[in-house]
Amino acid sequence: MTYQLKAIGKVKNDENGTCIQLEPGYIPGLQALEGFSHINVLWWFSDCDNDAGRNELQTEQPYQGAPEVMGVFATRSPARPNPIALTASEIINIDFTKGMIRVAFIDANDNTPVLDIKPYTPSFDRVEMPGVPTWCREWPKSTEASGCFDWGQVFNF
Amino acid sequence: MTYQLKAIGKVKNDENGTCIQLEPGYIPGLQALEGFSHINVLWWFSDCDNDAGRNELQTEQPYQGAPEVMGVFATRSPARPNPIALTASEIINIDFTKGMIRVAFIDANDNTPVLDIKPYTPSFDRVEMPGVPTWCREWPKSTEASGCFDWGQVFNF
Repeated sequence: MTYQLKAIGKVKNDENGTCIQLEPGYIPGLQALEGFSHINVLWWFSDCDNDAGRNELQTEQPYQGAPEVMGVFATRSPARPNPIALTASEIINIDFTKGMIRVAFIDANDNTPVLDIKPYTPSFDRVEMPGVPTWCREWPKSTEASGCFDWGQVFNF
Repeated sequence: MTYQLKAIGKVKNDENGTCIQLEPGYIPGLQALEGFSHINVLWWFSDCDNDAGRNELQTEQPYQGAPEVMGVFATRSPARPNPIALTASEIINIDFTKGMIRVAFIDANDNTPVLDIKPYTPSFDRVEMPGVPTWCREWPKSTEASGCFDWGQVFNF
């Protein structure tokens, strides 16, 4: 049994930064998004939508200091059975006519398919006191703190 | 162009509570998940995987006090173009042999297909100071606070 997805839009990176450009038919879906500072963006790891990536269940030490072998469900690795990415992105502005959401950051390449957008709702998405393993205890405690952290020293993938 | 998903497991609700039961082949993917207090669970709104649900772009006042018409991308409505749900669930325990994660809560029916599991990573998932529209400003500020809130008075769907 398989389930079908279709892109609702794309990530666009240009000299002005990063935005999500919706397909014209989906623009009415943005109504009343104003007031939310962040969105959860679900997007497709298109580069890993292949047999090798989708059959990868474990990965070798994806982060500095992490366990030597990790299951993909314990990582954010793009190679996973269903290559769906999740990014909590800060909204800079929304053009409701053009169906364009400019965001502060999204770790996706130009033209990456976007699958869904949900408002970042503290009641459902914000864990006040999340616990993490020792090996990542020094990582930033929030997306805000994450913006000025040197991730190059952490990721092995 | 469509993208294919397959279930990696199911939500199971029984007298002992709620758990995610992985398909046997995916159990190695759990390795090294210990230490994370929460996971992001992506699951399939199977009841809305039909033409009517997937073509719904706007919904009538889904929450008390919300705008009368809202785009689905401004809501958590199960009827949306790609009916993927996202729940940040607290882990109670993990049986790494059986591939079973017992969770405190997940708002999914018994046998709901699970698509992906990601560790709740504060650097990527926890917004310290999220902004929300006036109409939901009284909602709980975290998942912890959400647990003892009367949601029956809020949801219209």
